[in-house]
Amino acid sequence: MKIGILGTGAVGQTLGAKLLSLGHEVMLGARQAGNEKAITWVQQHGGNASEGAFEDAAQFGELLIVATLGTGTVAAVTQAGAANAAGKPVIDLTNPLDFSQGMPPQLFVGLTDSLGEQVQRALPGTYVVKTLNLVNVAQMIDPASADGGGEPTMFLCGDNAAAKQQVTAVLQQLGWRRITDLGGIKEARATEPFVLLWVRYGIVHNTWTHALTF
Amino acid sequence: MKIGILGTGAVGQTLGAKLLSLGHEVMLGARQAGNEKAITWVQQHGGNASEGAFEDAAQFGELLIVATLGTGTVAAVTQAGAANAAGKPVIDLTNPLDFSQGMPPQLFVGLTDSLGEQVQRALPGTYVVKTLNLVNVAQMIDPASADGGGEPTMFLCGDNAAAKQQVTAVLQQLGWRRITDLGGIKEARATEPFVLLWVRYGIVHNTWTHALTF
Repeated sequence: MKIGILGTGAVGQTLGAKLLSLGHEVMLGARQAGNEKAITWVQQHGGNASEGAFEDAAQFGELLIVATLGTGTVAAVTQAGAANAAGKPVIDLTNPLDFSQGMPPQLFVGLTDSLGEQVQRALPGTYVVKTLNLVNVAQMIDPASADGGGEPTMFLCGDNAAAKQQVTAVLQQLGWRRITDLGGIKEARATEPFVLLWVRYGIVHNTWTHALTF
Repeated sequence: MKIGILGTGAVGQTLGAKLLSLGHEVMLGARQAGNEKAITWVQQHGGNASEGAFEDAAQFGELLIVATLGTGTVAAVTQAGAANAAGKPVIDLTNPLDFSQGMPPQLFVGLTDSLGEQVQRALPGTYVVKTLNLVNVAQMIDPASADGGGEPTMFLCGDNAAAKQQVTAVLQQLGWRRITDLGGIKEARATEPFVLLWVRYGIVHNTWTHALTF
């Protein structure tokens, strides 16, 4: 499948490389085509890897993944364009973290709204699925590597059942076995605050490879 | 130890009975002394069990436990009285859940404040420790009974180190082994929203005996 990833940081690069290894074609999108990190990544990963602007990645992908910093998420998907992304499932794995006061971060949206819902509103006509925001990228692509060595739990939520099925298939390819569909995209209000707990536990125990199991 | 519990519902009664079985003296407090549920509970549990008004329980306990509905928490601790509770550790196990829109509930405080902080502000001179709010009462008193049969994780937070030590000892008596001190009472902003995820998972899987493990 053709997958467009918005974001060229560690999450986009690592998740993109894993998806290439699973046989997908992956384009990394940045604010502008020709992003230095994206070009290096393409050179490292060969023929099925490509790069472009956010708009290019949104056009390219049959499935899109938003992997920006939370503070840049709405700007990135707005630039990507609802028309380019129309009719497509969009995995939103971002978290609304505000590091402007240092560690630990605060949420910049919550209670009566969520970043997942903001992404859905910025991309009408797409099918946003919030997932993967619960763990570090190393565990996104290898859940069995989480502390404790068990099978951690992954949540997803979104308003379109078919999109959630497609995303579930991708999660299964990544190794996830315990996947719970929490309901509509509004349930991002329940999953996004979890990252505060995850970060705080990480600080206390100096680990960043932990994952929730229910 | 003498323990005063504010609240006569299932949580207060069950937790109180367990604490009696561990050798503590327990008074259940209600809005008014002579609460029917509290009297029945005292009759069932004998000599070390007693009941009274919130103020009585706050005076009685060397350690207090707030076990009311979240919507009644601040009123209950205000009635209990900062003077009666002064110098004591106060376990706050409540959650700021608003069921007025039905299921699933919404949080009525979060992001920039928490119910734990509200309890602390309502009881100046006490040492509030937020904990036990992550699970159902059956798992509070028997963590090994949680789904999966492992050792779930419990968090606590509060501003006073000695109070957290005393509360940790109580948690250990209840069977908790994996206890993480997240920091000051402000960290309740990280633990209280977790209940949304816990409730939503419970609805989807029709289980209410699940508990987080990290």
